Amino acid sequence: MLGRSVDGRCRVVIERVSPEIDCGRFPIKRVVGEKVIVEADVFADGHDRVACQILYWQGNEGVQSSPMEPLGNDRWRGEFVVNTIGKYQYTVEGWIDFFQSWRDAFEKKIAAGQDVHLDLVVAVKLVEGAATRATTDDAALLRQWAQRLQQNKTEASGSLIALQKELLNLMRRYPDRDLATRHEKQLGVTVDREKARFSTWYEIFPRSCSPEAGRHGTFQDCEKWLPYIASMGFDVVYLPPIHLIGQSFRRGKNNSADVQPDDVGSPWAVGSKEGGHKAVHPKLGTLEDFKRFLRRAGERGIEVALDIAFQCSPDHPYVTEHPEWFHTRPDGTIQYAENPPKKYQDIYPLDFETEEWQALWEELKSVFQFWIDQGVRIFRVDNPHTKPFPFWEFVIDEIKEKHPDVLFLSEAFTRPHVMFRLAKAGFSQSYTYFAWRNTKQEITDYFTELNQTELREYLRPNFWPNTPDILPEFLQVGGKAAFMVRLILAATLGASYGIYGPAFELCEHAPLRPGSEEYLNSEKYELKHRDLNAAGSLKELISRVNRIRKENPALQSNHNLRFHETDNPSLICYSKASDDFSNVIFVVVNLDCFHAQAGWVRLELASLGLDATQAFQVHDLLGDGKYLWQGLQNYVELVPESLPAHILRVRRWVRTERDFDYYL
Amino acid sequence: MLGRSVDGRCRVVIERVSPEIDCGRFPIKRVVGEKVIVEADVFADGHDRVACQILYWQGNEGVQSSPMEPLGNDRWRGEFVVNTIGKYQYTVEGWIDFFQSWRDAFEKKIAAGQDVHLDLVVAVKLVEGAATRATTDDAALLRQWAQRLQQNKTEASGSLIALQKELLNLMRRYPDRDLATRHEKQLGVTVDREKARFSTWYEIFPRSCSPEAGRHGTFQDCEKWLPYIASMGFDVVYLPPIHLIGQSFRRGKNNSADVQPDDVGSPWAVGSKEGGHKAVHPKLGTLEDFKRFLRRAGERGIEVALDIAFQCSPDHPYVTEHPEWFHTRPDGTIQYAENPPKKYQDIYPLDFETEEWQALWEELKSVFQFWIDQGVRIFRVDNPHTKPFPFWEFVIDEIKEKHPDVLFLSEAFTRPHVMFRLAKAGFSQSYTYFAWRNTKQEITDYFTELNQTELREYLRPNFWPNTPDILPEFLQVGGKAAFMVRLILAATLGASYGIYGPAFELCEHAPLRPGSEEYLNSEKYELKHRDLNAAGSLKELISRVNRIRKENPALQSNHNLRFHETDNPSLICYSKASDDFSNVIFVVVNLDCFHAQAGWVRLELASLGLDATQAFQVHDLLGDGKYLWQGLQNYVELVPESLPAHILRVRRWVRTERDFDYYL
Repeated sequence: MLGRSVDGRCRVVIERVSPEIDCGRFPIKRVVGEKVIVEADVFADGHDRVACQILYWQGNEGVQSSPMEPLGNDRWRGEFVVNTIGKYQYTVEGWIDFFQSWRDAFEKKIAAGQDVHLDLVVAVKLVEGAATRATTDDAALLRQWAQRLQQNKTEASGSLIALQKELLNLMRRYPDRDLATRHEKQLGVTVDREKARFSTWYEIFPRSCSPEAGRHGTFQDCEKWLPYIASMGFDVVYLPPIHLIGQSFRRGKNNSADVQPDDVGSPWAVGSKEGGHKAVHPKLGTLEDFKRFLRRAGERGIEVALDIAFQCSPDHPYVTEHPEWFHTRPDGTIQYAENPPKKYQDIYPLDFETEEWQALWEELKSVFQFWIDQGVRIFRVDNPHTKPFPFWEFVIDEIKEKHPDVLFLSEAFTRPHVMFRLAKAGFSQSYTYFAWRNTKQEITDYFTELNQTELREYLRPNFWPNTPDILPEFLQVGGKAAFMVRLILAATLGASYGIYGPAFELCEHAPLRPGSEEYLNSEKYELKHRDLNAAGSLKELISRVNRIRKENPALQSNHNLRFHETDNPSLICYSKASDDFSNVIFVVVNLDCFHAQAGWVRLELASLGLDATQAFQVHDLLGDGKYLWQGLQNYVELVPESLPAHILRVRRWVRTERDFDYYL
Repeated sequence: MLGRSVDGRCRVVIERVSPEIDCGRFPIKRVVGEKVIVEADVFADGHDRVACQILYWQGNEGVQSSPMEPLGNDRWRGEFVVNTIGKYQYTVEGWIDFFQSWRDAFEKKIAAGQDVHLDLVVAVKLVEGAATRATTDDAALLRQWAQRLQQNKTEASGSLIALQKELLNLMRRYPDRDLATRHEKQLGVTVDREKARFSTWYEIFPRSCSPEAGRHGTFQDCEKWLPYIASMGFDVVYLPPIHLIGQSFRRGKNNSADVQPDDVGSPWAVGSKEGGHKAVHPKLGTLEDFKRFLRRAGERGIEVALDIAFQCSPDHPYVTEHPEWFHTRPDGTIQYAENPPKKYQDIYPLDFETEEWQALWEELKSVFQFWIDQGVRIFRVDNPHTKPFPFWEFVIDEIKEKHPDVLFLSEAFTRPHVMFRLAKAGFSQSYTYFAWRNTKQEITDYFTELNQTELREYLRPNFWPNTPDILPEFLQVGGKAAFMVRLILAATLGASYGIYGPAFELCEHAPLRPGSEEYLNSEKYELKHRDLNAAGSLKELISRVNRIRKENPALQSNHNLRFHETDNPSLICYSKASDDFSNVIFVVVNLDCFHAQAGWVRLELASLGLDATQAFQVHDLLGDGKYLWQGLQNYVELVPESLPAHILRVRRWVRTERDFDYYL
C-alpha cells in the first residue's frame, strides 16, 4: 500500500554523513591507532530531542558504538579509533530521545509551577521501559528509580527525583531504539600499518651498487649499501624492476635506438625468454640472494619495496604463452607501446580489453602473490593509470584481504581525477605533483588541497623531489641549495617522502638536454658507479633531517600542517603539532636558492596551544641555533648556501611545583 | 571468482555527477520548459579519448540522449529540457571513443611522416563496426567510407579520406558502447507547471470579507474581492483553513483564554462535531459556494490555495472515531498541544507514532484528495515540520503521481536542515527566513545561499514580508517606507512571493505588545472589517510592481539573481537577466526607511551582456524616470518617503540594417 517497506514511524533523519567518499562507494584510509571522526546532520520533525551514535565493526566481529555530541545546527560529531589492520565499517544511527525530550518539557513545567503528577506517571513508564533493555544490575537500579517516582508522584519530591542527573545518565544508556533510523550506507575504512602514513624512501638501482666500476651490481653488493642507507635514516629501499630485461629493441644509453652489445637495457622492459615478472635478473643474483637482502635490510629496520611494471618486453614468456593478452595488429604482429609519434618497440602493453581479461587479472594478481611469498610487503606500481581502475580495485582488494599489511604506492603522474581515482581504488600511497610545486603560493595551494579537502581521507601523498624520470628544472639550476630546499620541504611538509639516490645526495643535476627533465646518461639505461663519500654529498643533512622526523611525532602526520604568513614571498613558514601540542615544530624555508632572504613570519599561535603574550624558545634542530620568540611577529633570516631553512622545535617554559623553570 | 559481476573491461569512470541530491535519494525540481544542466567527471585509464552523454526518460517512455561536451580537467557538461509535468529520470553514460582515439594518434603519425597503412586497416575495421550499428542509410554511407579507405590504404589519399570531418561526424553517431559505463544511479526530476516557480500570492481570511462590519464573511463575499485582488496582479489567493472551528477551549480575541460567546475562534483549531478536514465552515457557505468561488477566481486567472493544518480541535470527529490517532495521557484524556510552559488545549496534535500510522497516513492523504476533487490544485501546508518526513514523502509522492499539477507550499519556520529536508521530501515551494533578513549583508548572504548552492536544485523559495503570524520589527517601526521596501525586495528578489492582506497594503503595524511579532487584535481570533480604499493604501504600488513582474521575464526566475557592489551600506543593488539578455533589470533599494541615501553602484556589466564602454539607458519602471548610464560606476539617490527603490530596465541601442538607432 505505502510503497515503502520501512516503518513510517522512524522519524529521525540522517544526512551528510562524513567522511563518505562518493556516496560510500570507496573506503576511507587510516593507520592503526588513528581516529575516525564522523559527523552527520541528525534531526527529526517537531521539537523532540534526538540522540545518535556511530556504529562500527571489523569484519564479522561484534558491532561497537561510540556516542555523538551535538555541534549545533543539527550537526553531530563522534569518533572511534581503529586498532587493527584490515577493514572496518561504520555507520550512524539516530533515535528520538524520549526521556530527554520528556525531561526538557518537565523542567519548564516545574519552573512554571504547573501540576506535573501525570508527567511523573509518564516518567515511571519511560524508566520501566528502559529497565527492560538494561543489564540485570542496571535494570534493578532503574526499577528502584521507577518505584521511587511512583511513590512520590504527587509530592514535590517526585520532581526532584525525576530530575536527578544520575537517573538521566542511566536512562541515556538504555534508549528506546525500536524506531531508530540507520544511515542507509555502511561505510568502509581500510586500516593499514603505520608505515602507510609515515615512511622515508630511498630508491636505488641495485645494478649500480657494485664497488667496481663497470661491473653489474648484485643483491650482495646492495647489502653492503645498507649501513649507508640506514645511517641516513631511510626505512624503505625501493628497487626498480629486478626481472630479466628483454633483448628485442633494447634501448641503448640515453634511450638511444643505437644499442651496443654491452648495453644493459631498461629494467622496465620486463622479461626475457628465461623468465618474466616472477624471475630475478641473474646478474643481480638468485631469488635466494634477493631474500637474503630482504632479511639483511629488515635487520636494519628497512623494508624493501619492489617496482611492479605490468608491461612486457617482446621476449617475455607471456608473449608466446598468452598472445591473447596482447593487442594484435592487422599484420599479425603484436602492438608495441606508442605515444605517437614516439614508438616504444621494446615494450608490449597488456591488452586489458582482451576477452581473456579474467585470466589476465588472475595472473597479474599472482605476480604480487609471488613476491609476497618471498617476503615483500610494499609495492611501487609503475604507471597504474594505464591499466583499468576496476583491475586495481580487484587486485588490491584481493591481496589485502589475505595480506592486510601489504602497501601499494601509485606511480601515476597524470591528470588529477585519474590520480584521485587510483587512490580511491585502493592504493595506500600516491605520488604527487610535488616535483613541480616550487613557489610559496604553489606549495600552499597544493598542500592545502591535499590536507584540507576530502582527499585527506583516501589519498596519502608521498613526496619525491626527484625520480629517475624527473629531474625538475629547480634542481637543474639551483645548485646545492636547491637540493637542500627540496629535501627539507619534502621531509617536513610530508609524512612520507623519498629520494632517488645517490643521484640526489650527490646533487646530480645535468639534464639530457635543455628543457628536458630526463637525466643525462640516465641510470635507466646504463650502470652507474658513484663515490658515496664524495665531497659535497648531502648525506649528513639527510641523516639529520630524517632523525628530526623520527624524533618529532608532529612531523609524522600530514593533516596537522598549517601555513603561517610571511612578508617575503621567498620565505615559506608552516607548522606541525602533535594533537596534544607536546610537540610543536615550525619550519621556515628560503625558497630562493640564490639570495639570502629575511623577513617577518606571522604565527597563528593560539591554534598551536601557544600564548602570544609569553616568550617561548625555539630550537633550530637543523642549525642548532636557539632563539627567543614572542608574539605573533618574529624575524627570520636565511642564507641559501649555508642552510636555507630552520626546523624549529618549540620549547616551553613550565613552572613546576618546586617553583623553578626548566625546559620541557 | 572476481567478486564483481560487472565486466572488468568497462574502463570508463563516472564521478561527481551533478545535480545529485543526497546521492540520488531525492529528485531535483524543474518547471516545464526549463533546462537540466548535468555535469560529471568522466575519464578512463590511459590516453584513450572518452565520450559521454546524458540519458533521460519520462516514466516508461523511451530513453533519449543528449551529448556532453568537455569543460577541461575531465569535467563534462550537457543539458536537456523537460517539457512535460511529471517525473523524469536521468543518468550519465560514458565510453571509450575508439575512432577519435585512433584519429588523434593517426594525425600525429601523419605529421611525423610515419608509415600508416596498418593504421588505415584498423580504421576500416572501426568504420565497418560502426556500420553494423547505424541506420540503413548511414550504414551504406559508412560501408562506402570503409571501401574507400580499403582501396586507398597504401596511398596518401587514404590518409586524407580517413581524416575527413564528415567521416568523423558520422562515426560519432555510432560509437561502440558495448563496454560503456553507466552511472550507477538513476536521478530524478520532478517537473511542475510554471506556477511552481513564478507565483504571486495574496492571503486573506474569507470571514473578514464581509462588506458589513461584524458580519461573518462568506465565499460569496470573497467573490466580490476578486476584482480588487486581480487588479493588484495576484495569481494565487490563499485561504487559512476553511473548516469548522472547535468550541472546546476556543481562544478569544488576542489569543485570550477568556473567550466570549461571539468569539469566532482560530481557523487552525480544525473541526467540530459537524465535520473535520473535509467540511466547510457553514458560516462561509456551502461546498458549492466554495467551488463557485474557485471558478470565479479562475476566470480572473487566480488560483485558490487551501491551507491544510493536520491538527484537530477536541471536537473534531477523528477524536471520537479514531482515538488511536492521538496520544493518550495516563489519565485517559487525549494529549493537547504543548510547548511548555505554554498549553494549547484547543489543539490535539495527531500522533504519528501510533500503531495505526498507516491508516492515519491514508486518511490524511484522502483530505488532499477530497479538495483536489473539488478543484483545488495548490495547498499551503501548516507546520509540516511537526509531522514526520516519511509521511510527507509518501503523501506528496502519491498525490503527485495521480495529479502532477498539484503544488504544495511548506509553511515551516524552523531550523535550516529541517526546512531543506521538507523541500527534498517533495514540497514544491518553501517559506523562508526572508521576514528576518533586512540588512544588505543579510539579504546578500541569504539569497546567495538559496540561489548559488545545491538548494537551488530542490528548494523553491516563496518570500513573505508578513504573515498572520509574523509582523516583523522592520514593519512595526519603519512606517510606510518599510512596507514599500519589503514589498519591492520580495517581489524582485524572488520569483514567488506573497503578502498577507489587506493588512499589508494598509500598512497595519501594531504589535500585540513591544517585542512581539504577533499582530495586535490579530485576525486569527476575530473578524476584521477594513476599508480597501483607505488613503495610504499601497495597492497602486503593488499593482505596478506585479505588472512589472509579469512584463519582465527576468523577474520570473531566481537563479539569475546577481548582486552588485554599492558604496553605501543602506543601498542594495542587484540584477536579473533573461538567458539571452533580451531582458535585463537592475534593482536598487534604499534599505533605510528613515533617511534619503545616495551612492555609487558598481555594475558587473560583462556578465549581463552589456558593454562597459557604451552608454545605455535605464528606465525606472517604478518611478518612470529615465537615466543614461555608462561604465561600471553609476550614481543613485533614493528618498524613502517617495519611492525607496528603482526597478530599472535596460534599453539598448541597436543599429539596424537600415542604419538608424532605436530602442529595443
